[in-house]
Amino acid sequence: MASAAEKKLTGLVAATFTPFTPQGEINLPVIGDYIDYLRETQGVCNVFVNGTTGESMSLSVEERKKLAEEWCKRGHGKLEQVIVHVGSMSVKESKELARHAAEIGVDGIAVISPSFFKPKTAGALRTFLQEVASAAPNLPFYFYHLPAFTGVNIPARDVLEGIEQLIPSFRGVKFSGNDLMDFGLCASYSQPSWSLLYGVDEQLLSALVIGANGAVGSTYNYVGCHIKNLMSAFENGDLVQAKAIQFKLQELLKYAVQVGFDVGVNKQLMSEISGLTLGPPRLPVEPCSSAHAQSIKQKLISIFA
Amino acid sequence: MASAAEKKLTGLVAATFTPFTPQGEINLPVIGDYIDYLRETQGVCNVFVNGTTGESMSLSVEERKKLAEEWCKRGHGKLEQVIVHVGSMSVKESKELARHAAEIGVDGIAVISPSFFKPKTAGALRTFLQEVASAAPNLPFYFYHLPAFTGVNIPARDVLEGIEQLIPSFRGVKFSGNDLMDFGLCASYSQPSWSLLYGVDEQLLSALVIGANGAVGSTYNYVGCHIKNLMSAFENGDLVQAKAIQFKLQELLKYAVQVGFDVGVNKQLMSEISGLTLGPPRLPVEPCSSAHAQSIKQKLISIFA
Amino acid sequence: MASAAEKKLTGLVAATFTPFTPQGEINLPVIGDYIDYLRETQGVCNVFVNGTTGESMSLSVEERKKLAEEWCKRGHGKLEQVIVHVGSMSVKESKELARHAAEIGVDGIAVISPSFFKPKTAGALRTFLQEVASAAPNLPFYFYHLPAFTGVNIPARDVLEGIEQLIPSFRGVKFSGNDLMDFGLCASYSQPSWSLLYGVDEQLLSALVIGANGAVGSTYNYVGCHIKNLMSAFENGDLVQAKAIQFKLQELLKYAVQVGFDVGVNKQLMSEISGLTLGPPRLPVEPCSSAHAQSIKQKLISIFA
Amino acid sequence: MASAAEKKLTGLVAATFTPFTPQGEINLPVIGDYIDYLRETQGVCNVFVNGTTGESMSLSVEERKKLAEEWCKRGHGKLEQVIVHVGSMSVKESKELARHAAEIGVDGIAVISPSFFKPKTAGALRTFLQEVASAAPNLPFYFYHLPAFTGVNIPARDVLEGIEQLIPSFRGVKFSGNDLMDFGLCASYSQPSWSLLYGVDEQLLSALVIGANGAVGSTYNYVGCHIKNLMSAFENGDLVQAKAIQFKLQELLKYAVQVGFDVGVNKQLMSEISGLTLGPPRLPVEPCSSAHAQSIKQKLISIFA
Repeated sequence: MASAAEKKLTGLVAATFTPFTPQGEINLPVIGDYIDYLRETQGVCNVFVNGTTGESMSLSVEERKKLAEEWCKRGHGKLEQVIVHVGSMSVKESKELARHAAEIGVDGIAVISPSFFKPKTAGALRTFLQEVASAAPNLPFYFYHLPAFTGVNIPARDVLEGIEQLIPSFRGVKFSGNDLMDFGLCASYSQPSWSLLYGVDEQLLSALVIGANGAVGSTYNYVGCHIKNLMSAFENGDLVQAKAIQFKLQELLKYAVQVGFDVGVNKQLMSEISGLTLGPPRLPVEPCSSAHAQSIKQKLISIFA
Repeated sequence: MASAAEKKLTGLVAATFTPFTPQGEINLPVIGDYIDYLRETQGVCNVFVNGTTGESMSLSVEERKKLAEEWCKRGHGKLEQVIVHVGSMSVKESKELARHAAEIGVDGIAVISPSFFKPKTAGALRTFLQEVASAAPNLPFYFYHLPAFTGVNIPARDVLEGIEQLIPSFRGVKFSGNDLMDFGLCASYSQPSWSLLYGVDEQLLSALVIGANGAVGSTYNYVGCHIKNLMSAFENGDLVQAKAIQFKLQELLKYAVQVGFDVGVNKQLMSEISGLTLGPPRLPVEPCSSAHAQSIKQKLISIFA
Repeated sequence: MASAAEKKLTGLVAATFTPFTPQGEINLPVIGDYIDYLRETQGVCNVFVNGTTGESMSLSVEERKKLAEEWCKRGHGKLEQVIVHVGSMSVKESKELARHAAEIGVDGIAVISPSFFKPKTAGALRTFLQEVASAAPNLPFYFYHLPAFTGVNIPARDVLEGIEQLIPSFRGVKFSGNDLMDFGLCASYSQPSWSLLYGVDEQLLSALVIGANGAVGSTYNYVGCHIKNLMSAFENGDLVQAKAIQFKLQELLKYAVQVGFDVGVNKQLMSEISGLTLGPPRLPVEPCSSAHAQSIKQKLISIFA
Repeated sequence: MASAAEKKLTGLVAATFTPFTPQGEINLPVIGDYIDYLRETQGVCNVFVNGTTGESMSLSVEERKKLAEEWCKRGHGKLEQVIVHVGSMSVKESKELARHAAEIGVDGIAVISPSFFKPKTAGALRTFLQEVASAAPNLPFYFYHLPAFTGVNIPARDVLEGIEQLIPSFRGVKFSGNDLMDFGLCASYSQPSWSLLYGVDEQLLSALVIGANGAVGSTYNYVGCHIKNLMSAFENGDLVQAKAIQFKLQELLKYAVQVGFDVGVNKQLMSEISGLTLGPPRLPVEPCSSAHAQSIKQKLISIFA
């Protein structure tokens, strides 16, 4: 991995699942194969580790550290960037995770808003982010905006106001929301070194047209190779082709939602497609049957055939 | 106005304000000048009458009829299409309004979901729409999707399922929501004769890229001339220019929301910009001071200069 | 009916259903029998007409007038008080209904907050209520608070602030919400002539203990005779008995919600229990099968046996 | 502290604040004085440690352990019961905290639903609770229901269904919600050994009448002495007096909410009233000025004088 200061994060970033053993403990040995699969089969060379897809909030601090270490170690020379999410309900634990991330040499860290106690103002949230960033001042820092999960509805643009003064290492946003006016306002406010990473896979094209530089999402684990084509088509001005691919992903997710879709289903789906053994999710997410995931896999195959 | 059956509704459609006298009664004589302003100053030749911007839910049935008549009469030969919203909490009143719309020769009708009693399924909503459409079977019919106001969160795509069988006059959707996966699914399901009209002005570009044929919104009353340029730029593949204009509208609305923005403010803003005397809104919307609206007007001038 | 000025509304008030013909038109002739049933079988002598249970928002203005007239005419000499809800999305139509209510001699009127355009402050809502009350200045006036339906979450206590100056005919609140701190604050603010009517039947006892003078609800149509016992027990300090009855109603509603419960089911349930022919609900509420309602009726019988 | 198996938890339970140093580290030495204050000035002899009031979600696992230890050690011989909340987003960390609680001899543990990943069914939540309980099978176990914070709207009654089979140590619910039908259903389902502890202080009386055995809340830290009178009045059948005291607490909280109230304000208010030095809250909760808290204290004094 090159010096983070030199590289701007763009393109597709897979929000990785956390492999578990059948007994529900983290399963580090799978990660090496996981990285190979992403690179070789999907053509995806950036990962967002310990995010929502990775069930980070269900992990202990120790588990999060071990996972970050393994992704870094195994990704070395194979992945372009390993971004580690270090957000937590506790600013104290977040700082500990940020310090650890700096020690192991990740390419960047991201932080979500705490959501049990919700910041009441953009300023309060900014102060929280600043506090965490101060524990790893040399790591590129990303704000992770996920209002549907956190219930924190402060516009991302308000959070960004003056953030470059408070967090010199600030490098962008992972924006996982539907409000594209807010996203556009982030894009028009953003600085050249920032990355605007969109996180709602099923409407990526709508974000690209308003300023997204890249995309972080769980579906890129298994349809990354197709969405790379969407991004290329967009860059080449072929909106007809880009739209056609976007429609396919929408059709797939419509089906998945209809039959039942959450991080547990998503993880099983990835196991079925990739052949990796990712194991069950952790409570309170419930395990998904192989048959359920297979039906979504078949739909995927028929759509993207 | 040409035969509705022949024309597909595309391009910009102004969601019109309802002019009131200072005493709060509808003020029909303003409508003629309003139409001239839209055509001549904004270049907008389609109107969506008695919608949310027009405060239809605050009007009596009689007032809605008179307004529809005046827009049709004055718009004749000047406007391309006059679409009249006939939705209401009461299916009985909606049908009465639909019948009336057919009698006076509007170019199409639109219906929003009832929102006091909310339909519990897409099927229930579809049956409601079908019942209203049956009162004006020869008028192009549009479903008006506005979940943030109605609280009805049934995906529009689910409402469209098989609707062409139930409502032969069905011609499209005014989609005023942020969920662009749902919008994209409507677009990929839609038939050639349908219009997919997007209704969130501040993220129009994001909808165009995924299949919008046109746009219905309140800001087209006063920035229609600029947004026409956005649409042209998009059609010509000039995404840089399209994005630049979209950013301007986002900046304007950010400012407006910050200082306070609702249909009353919006109406006063239109009065200040157009020179028309649109009067106050009706309760429970509160009147807006001229100074408040002027500050937004000045922002608009500085942004779009 | 005695002079409204003399009587304070207390005790049980049935929120009445609106009888429809099988074709979906209002069915006035049923009302006479309906009144007899309420009086004779349930011991309920006050009615709240054209409220939520009565599907008023789905009715035309003319239908609401005819219903109010019929309830007044048939209730004369049989009912103690006929309260007519005149709220509407349109202040203009609400005023028309209020004037009409005064002409036909109802005992009081009630008004809900408009909910399509939502008042942004307690002051805006109070002004809306005042405007309607001004059309029937001699009729006892009640504010109808139903936040779960309207989405208007302004505390009722804030709406009451100084309302007696603005609406001299103000006589109380029909409070249909779970926030019993807000209800208690209304109670401690209330004047001796006001009625604090609680509207969440399944937690009535919890409201009685904090100051309710009476109750308005749909279940009093068919379990009024039992809930009268709850109220008597409470007045006599027999909290054990009061609680036992409240538990029964909770058990019934738990069952109903589990199998599916809305105003359409509720109406069919009333038909099955009373033997009255109340007909179907109006769209967007969907009809309920007799079997579905019968299963709830059987549960009721087994619980209250 | 007596054997937990013998004592049913009833009466008032203070949800304790977590003392911090000015630098934001936990401040254990304050706890001894805190216990004395609760006992001697407020007459409160039960505590609920590391709950929402105690900012547990903002603490590290280590901090939570140290706090639990200190409360147990200092409370020995002075407090009747020390209940420790061990809920967390992570079932793994919750189990670790539960095991630790058993080791140090607390009187009971409580667990809230995880709220980042939300259980989708009552069964999933029950399984989560069961898993945590299994790590401390001999400790009385309480389910902590706080839907406004967690966003998990599964009725508590549904969670209780059959829970005594899955968690033999189950002893009740801390119910911090407004839905008193759900609370009543819990009460009617509950077994003699269970405690139904109500957690919305401002409507406690409404819960007592429907079956509450006790109350857990933050205001009991500083108005416990008054609310004990409310409970006595209720037990003695003096509802007039009970209501009068409840109205006072409602008036106080209305004022507090009006001027701004959250866990940070609440903590500062406790410092001002008790003379203890509880310090600031932890991010994302923002510190409260002494003046702000003093204004609420003065209101409290004038109301309860």
